[in-house]
Amino acid sequence: MAYAQRMLEAHPWPGHVDRSVLAECIEACVECAQACQSCADACLSEESVADLRKCIRLNLDCDDVCSATARVLTRQTEYDAPLSRALVEVCRQACATCGEECESHASHHEHCRICAEACRRCEQACAALLDAMK
Amino acid sequence: MAYAQRMLEAHPWPGHVDRSVLAECIEACVECAQACQSCADACLSEESVADLRKCIRLNLDCDDVCSATARVLTRQTEYDAPLSRALVEVCRQACATCGEECESHASHHEHCRICAEACRRCEQACAALLDAMK
Amino acid sequence: MAYAQRMLEAHPWPGHVDRSVLAECIEACVECAQACQSCADACLSEESVADLRKCIRLNLDCDDVCSATARVLTRQTEYDAPLSRALVEVCRQACATCGEECESHASHHEHCRICAEACRRCEQACAALLDAMK
Amino acid sequence: MAYAQRMLEAHPWPGHVDRSVLAECIEACVECAQACQSCADACLSEESVADLRKCIRLNLDCDDVCSATARVLTRQTEYDAPLSRALVEVCRQACATCGEECESHASHHEHCRICAEACRRCEQACAALLDAMK
Repeated sequence: MAYAQRMLEAHPWPGHVDRSVLAECIEACVECAQACQSCADACLSEESVADLRKCIRLNLDCDDVCSATARVLTRQTEYDAPLSRALVEVCRQACATCGEECESHASHHEHCRICAEACRRCEQACAALLDAMK
Repeated sequence: MAYAQRMLEAHPWPGHVDRSVLAECIEACVECAQACQSCADACLSEESVADLRKCIRLNLDCDDVCSATARVLTRQTEYDAPLSRALVEVCRQACATCGEECESHASHHEHCRICAEACRRCEQACAALLDAMK
Repeated sequence: MAYAQRMLEAHPWPGHVDRSVLAECIEACVECAQACQSCADACLSEESVADLRKCIRLNLDCDDVCSATARVLTRQTEYDAPLSRALVEVCRQACATCGEECESHASHHEHCRICAEACRRCEQACAALLDAMK
Repeated sequence: MAYAQRMLEAHPWPGHVDRSVLAECIEACVECAQACQSCADACLSEESVADLRKCIRLNLDCDDVCSATARVLTRQTEYDAPLSRALVEVCRQACATCGEECESHASHHEHCRICAEACRRCEQACAALLDAMK
């Protein structure tokens, strides 16, 4: 997704944080949300679906939080630092929680392995953005 | 919206928090999200739209956060207390921030006055749920 | 949810369709979306989750379509009739499909019975709005 | 976004359509949604915001429809062909409508130029998927 960075560069509002770090976090959120939705649905198709309830639930939560975070971070106009920071912190937590759960199924389900990768990448992108926001 | 409470009562997962307080918060989030989307769009139609940029931005943020919170709170299966609590805390903050901005335009724009009411109700419902979650 | 109608009445953009019919459809979409998310999660908790895969999938689809429709219908500024109509038509279809599936489980699961009610109400509200949009 | 394709390949549900075409459409929807949210916010920051109301409104609509379409297309379990097709058709329409509006501002605003590109790419990806779904 080359658009997030290019759109930030074309935005008239003065930047408040390093644009590369911000764009990387927006992209990681968007991709993690999609991977989590996909993993929830793949788990639902598994024969062992009854053992994957926690994974499905956390996948759906992580999708919701990452999607909301991506939208809020995308907005530059009248940036509200405290709200953005608090939301990125929750997003990092959601990704860590979901990533840990997915990792525990990674040896049995390739979709959980890939999804854990997306969650960990997003967790790190949130941490990097929180550093840059200080 | 009578469904949230009735659906919680029909849910097979054992309850982890007072269902009336939870249902009230879910409903408040859903209604606040809709009011904020409506207020953002009403502000966009105003002649003074250039003075309402901050209101529009916070309205859209509040919609995103309330919508995500409503979905996460709706889920009972494999409830994750720390994530839920952290998200409700951010939702309370988003509603407080947006409610304050809307109140500052309430005397000029009836849609901001009504939206502030929705934000303050949701802020209080989040606070009540945080108390019940302790 | 008393806000949808009140917000429409406070909106500066000239109305393009009967506001009561429009508000009823927005509210029905928002409530159906929440009921569907709740039903998907309740189905996930059931012992017979493996037999409820289709219900869960259609619930999540119906939530997504109803949520998007509620947001688009909430916007009055620069109303685009063809897009709105096409989306409401898809929303009616999503509610009919999900409502039929939920009805087939209504005798076993109260959450499916209530959710079917929400879907059928939204299906009818979409049909009424399509009539009013002509 | 390399995840969409990899996740589809790891999904246990039997494929119902060419996975490359499907993955390309999911990715295009996700990226178009993000670009549209970004363009709406960039337009809001412009001095000429009052002349960009239609662009903002269509951007937000396009984001909502693309986001819902991406989620529905991501799900493979118990695929419902008629609903998927109808939604992709509306998504194509939303992208065409928004793309046309953005193009009309492309010479003045770089963010509209880039966003139009994202819309047109998504419009084409929807058309290609509709062909593959036949």
